[in-house]
Amino acid sequence: MIQSYNSRLLDNAVAHLAKLPGIGQKTALRLALHLLRQEEDVAVGLGEAIAEMRRGIRYCSKCHNISEEDICPICASSRRDPDTVCVVESVKDVLTIEATREFNGLYHVLGGVISPLDGVSPSDLEIDSLVNRVTDDDVKEVILALNPTIEGDTTNFYIFRKLADSGVKISILARGISIGNELEYTDELTLGRSILNRVPFSNTFSTK
Amino acid sequence: MIQSYNSRLLDNAVAHLAKLPGIGQKTALRLALHLLRQEEDVAVGLGEAIAEMRRGIRYCSKCHNISEEDICPICASSRRDPDTVCVVESVKDVLTIEATREFNGLYHVLGGVISPLDGVSPSDLEIDSLVNRVTDDDVKEVILALNPTIEGDTTNFYIFRKLADSGVKISILARGISIGNELEYTDELTLGRSILNRVPFSNTFSTK
Repeated sequence: MIQSYNSRLLDNAVAHLAKLPGIGQKTALRLALHLLRQEEDVAVGLGEAIAEMRRGIRYCSKCHNISEEDICPICASSRRDPDTVCVVESVKDVLTIEATREFNGLYHVLGGVISPLDGVSPSDLEIDSLVNRVTDDDVKEVILALNPTIEGDTTNFYIFRKLADSGVKISILARGISIGNELEYTDELTLGRSILNRVPFSNTFSTK
Repeated sequence: MIQSYNSRLLDNAVAHLAKLPGIGQKTALRLALHLLRQEEDVAVGLGEAIAEMRRGIRYCSKCHNISEEDICPICASSRRDPDTVCVVESVKDVLTIEATREFNGLYHVLGGVISPLDGVSPSDLEIDSLVNRVTDDDVKEVILALNPTIEGDTTNFYIFRKLADSGVKISILARGISIGNELEYTDELTLGRSILNRVPFSNTFSTK
């Protein structure tokens, strides 16, 4: 139920805030009233920061990470190793792995994982562009760093088969990460170590 | 610790979001990335709604509730009973009481309660303006609707003594509300009933 608060401006701000994930009507009202109590430049600054961020940020045409330019700073950096590409589900996984400071290669953001129940098929993801990139850029190793869930494993296997003929080395994060958890909430030490201890993908399922 | 996310615009939005109450660095990042995934007008709309709200809303010069005009719609309404003034701590308490639809008088927002530990003295609150309003506008009844806490009770008693000579009737919300709770989280039925069953303030402490 949308309540009215006797002010069109407040109603409007609360309605917008309540659309954010995890924020209901009461929390939205609390945040709006908090912002009203602050100096004007705090609230206006927040509003402008959000609008500017959305207007200014696009996606890197190479790795599909967020970027303010056509090519993101990681792909453009000469200090990163272009031979190694780490495949992740989402932008926030890039940030999580960057925070470990254990990885110096490039990324490839899939934009999700294969999930028939949610209607996500391989063609909805950046898998073809990954295959092209591996071939065109002469990538030596692909590290699969998807969340350790059923959908993540399915996507790992799909990518593994797609890249099997290319001769690229395919690794997967060491299974120090507990199954069913989100990558984002793994502590940085465990996650960093699982990047260092990555194992060839073919070892993770029984091959004859 | 402020993390950097390889984008000045994202850093800026996350830093602003993380200043909101109850929102930490991780939640702020989650919200920012959520907004990035939405259509541009969703994020820009939120940003503009917040900025416009803060720029456009001021406080009613009569009751100190939020208002887009000098006098708020409640004070300006000819359908509200100007003989009864309900004294509340904050703007959100006005909204909470309005939602019960049991009160048809006017409000007076104190802007807090007397709390020496937090450095809030009577002069920081809109108590003098309440006393003037009772005298000037010939108010018949003042309903004290502060949160049922020690500070709320102290403030109730302070206002009671300030208004004792004016001859105005002073009521207090029926103590159906459980002591120590916040007004905002009381269910509307209980709160509505406690407005209807209000009792004279002098009944609530032992008088000879």
